[in-house]
Amino acid sequence: MSVKIAKNSGFCFGVKRAIKIASEAAQGNHKIVTLGPIIHNPQMVEKLASEGIERVNEVSEIQGRPTIIRSHGVKKEVLEELIANNIEIINATCPYVSKTQEYAKELSEQGYMVVIMGDKNHPEVIALSSYIEGECLIVASAEDVPEKKYQKVGIISQTTRKIDDLQKLVSIFIPKCHEMRVMNTICNATSIRQESTLELAKESDLMIVVGGRNSSNTKMLARISEDFVETFHIETACEIDKKWFKGRNNIGLTAGASTPDWVIVEVYNKIIECMGNINQKVDKIKDIPGFKEEE
Amino acid sequence: MSVKIAKNSGFCFGVKRAIKIASEAAQGNHKIVTLGPIIHNPQMVEKLASEGIERVNEVSEIQGRPTIIRSHGVKKEVLEELIANNIEIINATCPYVSKTQEYAKELSEQGYMVVIMGDKNHPEVIALSSYIEGECLIVASAEDVPEKKYQKVGIISQTTRKIDDLQKLVSIFIPKCHEMRVMNTICNATSIRQESTLELAKESDLMIVVGGRNSSNTKMLARISEDFVETFHIETACEIDKKWFKGRNNIGLTAGASTPDWVIVEVYNKIIECMGNINQKVDKIKDIPGFKEEE
Repeated sequence: MSVKIAKNSGFCFGVKRAIKIASEAAQGNHKIVTLGPIIHNPQMVEKLASEGIERVNEVSEIQGRPTIIRSHGVKKEVLEELIANNIEIINATCPYVSKTQEYAKELSEQGYMVVIMGDKNHPEVIALSSYIEGECLIVASAEDVPEKKYQKVGIISQTTRKIDDLQKLVSIFIPKCHEMRVMNTICNATSIRQESTLELAKESDLMIVVGGRNSSNTKMLARISEDFVETFHIETACEIDKKWFKGRNNIGLTAGASTPDWVIVEVYNKIIECMGNINQKVDKIKDIPGFKEEE
Repeated sequence: MSVKIAKNSGFCFGVKRAIKIASEAAQGNHKIVTLGPIIHNPQMVEKLASEGIERVNEVSEIQGRPTIIRSHGVKKEVLEELIANNIEIINATCPYVSKTQEYAKELSEQGYMVVIMGDKNHPEVIALSSYIEGECLIVASAEDVPEKKYQKVGIISQTTRKIDDLQKLVSIFIPKCHEMRVMNTICNATSIRQESTLELAKESDLMIVVGGRNSSNTKMLARISEDFVETFHIETACEIDKKWFKGRNNIGLTAGASTPDWVIVEVYNKIIECMGNINQKVDKIKDIPGFKEEE
């Protein structure tokens, strides 16, 4: 009977960076806010609130306070509004997300009809689409592509999507356009977490995926895992039901790029408890079997 | 019992144009040559020879005579050599092929590793690759793509390939590169002939594909047809064997973009003869059931 964690589980570069920027800003200033959740993990957002970083949802709630821009970025118009109102901006947008925004702008300026593969209601996609001047199409997958011909199509992706969905989308567009430019903006952190999760799911008889229910990259890990084995997507250890593990021998654990280490450790220890191996509990994520930090 | 021809069968715009350029040049000058076959149809090349257009294979055989550049184009270096030798050039390169050469040059100048989907021994591809300054990869299909990562990949295709092969190739490259630019250079004449052939093959119990054995687009039509029904690729009527038609009711006929009308009519009449319906013979391609000229 074993519990193993997928390689590279947990915080990615962009999330670590955003948390660091926020924490440092909070030390010098006790009246800062984030506009929307800084990352898609309610537990981490709560912890930051306890450090004095208030989350507001609308520009009108900022009331002159220094404002952290969430890792997912915000709409161009919102940034312009903050600047016009002389708000101090602490930009924690993931650099890979910023790069995607630059590509969106560039493709749009070059006359491409820009296609974003992503969730049209996700803040990253909402922000991204604001950088496109001309025609823009947001699709969740190849199935959403209209029966229509285009001249020049520029394709980008929300940073946390699946590579095979991008492959299908690009393939669908080939007979529909004369020219296509594709920027593979699925970030490396997403790709390696997906690969490690896939690998572990194949050798497990149950998978536990830990991370925010609003986290796009965590939801993708769950989708990938589900194709191979029974999978539960949870946010915290208290959601775990002992019955899940009955008759299971190889439990796989994976976590999204915005899931804090302490949440993962709590989940691991709860699984261990359910399986009756309490002497195998750990204090740190690096002690969970299978863990390997992202290089 | 019926014999039907696929819509749009026979000469495409580029082939008609090349033949017209050659014939007009021959009227004013009885000492012109083509460097290589002007189109990939031995019967047409023979007919042009009877009009005084000699085919040579090497620059050294030109001996100062005005030279027709074949519809498939020639290498940049060959053109330069002709110019250096003050040879009068009559350029019958298909405009769509010339456009593909421009794309090859442009992608190469923009720092893309240029991938040509095509047959590395085909004159069009040999000519095309001469316009690429930097790294270049010629692949027949997605199976030929090496296990390697690239930064910027620019993909073009020989004008006569299959669109689904291009889709597979593009899809294979997505996880292998950061940026991709694809010019769909499969020409419209190719696509519509492939679609019409596919349509007819599905409703036939035998298909006859007429065209040069060296003709890439004709070979593609045969490949498409073969996936659905027994198919014979022939160059002329005299290759037909009466036995093929025994027990067949719906015969489909299709022809490549370089197959002359008179060759198609001869084939149709031979089939009609084999089936014992000699009073259904025709004089012109437009009288063959199912014929519809390309718009």
